[in-house]
Amino acid sequence: MTSVKTKSKTTEGNFFDSFHIGQEIPHATPRTITTGDVAIYNALYGARFALQTSDEFARDCGLPRSPMDDICAFHIIFGKTVPDVSINAMANLGYADCRFLKPLYPGDTINTVSKVIGLKQNSNGKTGIVYVRSTGYNQRKEVVLDYVRWVMVYKKDLDAPAPETVIPDLPSVVAPDSLVVPEGLDFSKYDTVLGGSEFLWEDYETGEKIDHVDGRTIAESEHMMATRISENNARIHFDDFGQKPTRYGQRLVFGGHVISTARALSYNGFSNACFMAAINGGRHVNPSFGGDTVYCWSEILDRAEVPRRKDIGALRLRTVATKDQACADFPYKSAEGEYLPSVTLDLDYWVFMPRRV
Amino acid sequence: MTSVKTKSKTTEGNFFDSFHIGQEIPHATPRTITTGDVAIYNALYGARFALQTSDEFARDCGLPRSPMDDICAFHIIFGKTVPDVSINAMANLGYADCRFLKPLYPGDTINTVSKVIGLKQNSNGKTGIVYVRSTGYNQRKEVVLDYVRWVMVYKKDLDAPAPETVIPDLPSVVAPDSLVVPEGLDFSKYDTVLGGSEFLWEDYETGEKIDHVDGRTIAESEHMMATRISENNARIHFDDFGQKPTRYGQRLVFGGHVISTARALSYNGFSNACFMAAINGGRHVNPSFGGDTVYCWSEILDRAEVPRRKDIGALRLRTVATKDQACADFPYKSAEGEYLPSVTLDLDYWVFMPRRV
Amino acid sequence: MTSVKTKSKTTEGNFFDSFHIGQEIPHATPRTITTGDVAIYNALYGARFALQTSDEFARDCGLPRSPMDDICAFHIIFGKTVPDVSINAMANLGYADCRFLKPLYPGDTINTVSKVIGLKQNSNGKTGIVYVRSTGYNQRKEVVLDYVRWVMVYKKDLDAPAPETVIPDLPSVVAPDSLVVPEGLDFSKYDTVLGGSEFLWEDYETGEKIDHVDGRTIAESEHMMATRISENNARIHFDDFGQKPTRYGQRLVFGGHVISTARALSYNGFSNACFMAAINGGRHVNPSFGGDTVYCWSEILDRAEVPRRKDIGALRLRTVATKDQACADFPYKSAEGEYLPSVTLDLDYWVFMPRRV
Repeated sequence: MTSVKTKSKTTEGNFFDSFHIGQEIPHATPRTITTGDVAIYNALYGARFALQTSDEFARDCGLPRSPMDDICAFHIIFGKTVPDVSINAMANLGYADCRFLKPLYPGDTINTVSKVIGLKQNSNGKTGIVYVRSTGYNQRKEVVLDYVRWVMVYKKDLDAPAPETVIPDLPSVVAPDSLVVPEGLDFSKYDTVLGGSEFLWEDYETGEKIDHVDGRTIAESEHMMATRISENNARIHFDDFGQKPTRYGQRLVFGGHVISTARALSYNGFSNACFMAAINGGRHVNPSFGGDTVYCWSEILDRAEVPRRKDIGALRLRTVATKDQACADFPYKSAEGEYLPSVTLDLDYWVFMPRRV
Repeated sequence: MTSVKTKSKTTEGNFFDSFHIGQEIPHATPRTITTGDVAIYNALYGARFALQTSDEFARDCGLPRSPMDDICAFHIIFGKTVPDVSINAMANLGYADCRFLKPLYPGDTINTVSKVIGLKQNSNGKTGIVYVRSTGYNQRKEVVLDYVRWVMVYKKDLDAPAPETVIPDLPSVVAPDSLVVPEGLDFSKYDTVLGGSEFLWEDYETGEKIDHVDGRTIAESEHMMATRISENNARIHFDDFGQKPTRYGQRLVFGGHVISTARALSYNGFSNACFMAAINGGRHVNPSFGGDTVYCWSEILDRAEVPRRKDIGALRLRTVATKDQACADFPYKSAEGEYLPSVTLDLDYWVFMPRRV
Repeated sequence: MTSVKTKSKTTEGNFFDSFHIGQEIPHATPRTITTGDVAIYNALYGARFALQTSDEFARDCGLPRSPMDDICAFHIIFGKTVPDVSINAMANLGYADCRFLKPLYPGDTINTVSKVIGLKQNSNGKTGIVYVRSTGYNQRKEVVLDYVRWVMVYKKDLDAPAPETVIPDLPSVVAPDSLVVPEGLDFSKYDTVLGGSEFLWEDYETGEKIDHVDGRTIAESEHMMATRISENNARIHFDDFGQKPTRYGQRLVFGGHVISTARALSYNGFSNACFMAAINGGRHVNPSFGGDTVYCWSEILDRAEVPRRKDIGALRLRTVATKDQACADFPYKSAEGEYLPSVTLDLDYWVFMPRRV
């Protein structure tokens, strides 16, 4: 019989053979967010959405003050899952069915709980795919956001039997009538001058493509700080020496850093799209490294009215980020349907936008 | 007739031919400043002026708490003007007539409005100089600071007729009797031990030169974070890939980063000069790049009493910053009157300082 | 007679021959800490100790809110001493007898006073060792922490007579019964799930060694920001150009950055060791540079009960940090007793940990 004393004191995290369907994983490291976190996030990405930069503007839109950027909230909730879910992952395969249900405000404290909803061992017997639904809660136990991700994780005991395959049924798109408008939000007096653009929900058409023009070169310290803001401890992002013998030979940039950078750059084109409503799906299709320059473009995939609201509408966007390639001609996939090597991110999501009233 | 739908959704900003005399430009992205912004600014520059680092010290000087560093306030107010005024600028030519009228405190929300006060098309017909007076307001519509800058901007339509030339009449020096002491400030019990130096207003003489001794090497991520703190989106500072084909072949450091670095280094020599009162003029005379080491020196250009105040005086300073050249011998201009290639900044300004009471 | 006017306005700091036994040095730059400082510290180190990341968790442990990380508090108190004590130091030789007496909370204002308690001129007549006890106070004049450090400082006037040698009597270990539990702290309902590990005080055995597994590559901007957070202005950390002619040829990383990094990495192994209680001794045995990757391991040196407390115990730890060498085999000293060249830090300290109740 082994006592707790003789156990390794360091956490190795879960392997594929540690998971079972229905397993609930409450994650460590609860986190109170502050205006300090907001300020660092802004310094890393250059926030310009007026509702997130000005408490006065937020109050004029019916909120108590500026909420935290939704993507930052997503990363913090995501980060807590890393030590338990993906520290032994070979690849982060995708996101789906993510809804932003409640804005976070400075002073709120976040917890995350994950539930295993799918398992599929790979035919090589060495790895398997784990699907988890992760839910972020605030200090009042209200759900802040909720999403599914799936990762390919190493097995520890190669002789462990394969679990029954369960692949969850995931929506390819979050239904627009299930999107949740932040409590109190009222865009009827939205100020487009301070917002930074005259373009409102009515002005975008399905199929329209927008080059977000600007480029941002990734500094090593910036992506590492970004990763630490969310307490994501995946060593691949921090340990350049340890990465030398690997196929990339260096640290990899946290995929969330590319999402945040693309979201910030998309201000030029969607200046009034100040809230994320949902993430329908997202893939990091090529890795990024320090020194890469991020560009991005977007396409309007769909438009939806919001039930009982004349002041607010939803746009479904695809935002594609590239590295070291400007996006005037919307780089995406080859004729064979493969992502171009310069493409790093393919993100499909809903945003809320003021309507012309 | 074109509808709003067919317009490009990205902002291209104004060109020389978009401006007209008297034009008022309310800028987007209102901004609530927080102790988070203050902390990042301090982490980037190493604030040591006691009044800005300690709420207790500030209260002992009659203020409600530590105000934000004046230069940081200047950059935030400046940053808002970039998308509208200088995103298509070839060069930022100068600043003048800047007065610091009200300190900013965490919780304040800033807006900026600019007015076009001068225009002069260049003889090449491709560019012109635009003079704007930009005014920063707090949430109570009080003027926080006010300054003029002029930039050389590209024309978009080369066939557009040249506007009538108007060159504003700008003071070479802000009159010392127009300087505004922050409301409530009382230096009669100023603590020089905590302030960091025994030297007060009386101890400086016109013509005296001070080498600020220390050097600071610019990290890429630091100048980019600094630029984003002020929501300045000029792509020349962020897009290293896009800059490769240009004459510099790389990102340029935001000039404000050099001003802030020099101001922080000047603590060693002016430890008690905790408030900027005015900027008489400023020029970025050579560009800086990541990896450059900033040094600086100052000269006392003038001294002025403050009307009806025995506790506070003003010093007019010239601070000159260099790159990769220490300042023990005060590098400045050649015999021919040209700035030395190592000189990056020539800043002429007023500071407030406690007097010996 | 020289007047204050003719004195150099820049501070040169103290040399060995400026110090005398019993001298009290009140340091400049009082500092109000904020959630902004906490957020930057977290972004630099990736805080994961639940008590410091969640106000709710802290309240569940009897505190008013999350206190600042103890090591960050140490650095801020330390930083104030640099301009007066070690700006002319050749080497920072060691720390001892450091007790953490009161947690710092956002809003607190810190002052530091040092007292010279030892002097010993070196036989070369050019340098000497200065021992100071530095004490950090909050705005209520309560002692926050207290420690001794000794540094080798240059003499300015080589003809100045050697002072009488005084070497203070310093404890090699802070007596465990003198450790001070933070006021109000109650671990009787400590939540190990949110804390991140099942291991409590009872589970560690003297002699046990723990490899903290992860590695962190040091970015230049990160160590500089870290150094500036604590207003440490030692130019060796900032001026890469000025360091070129020296034996290292480049900036050196502030030793405190290695301590903070090691402390953050030690979460994996000591997830519930959320308070520092004392530093018994510490040495920076080899310098670190930007680009180095930090790894670390720890050994349990001792265990102590805390008088009258069943909910809390103390562990005495040695944490050894390395550069570019993973710590699975606990690298430390050669057979001859010399530190291995990869070892950068040898830190001996007490932490508080919840007990199984």
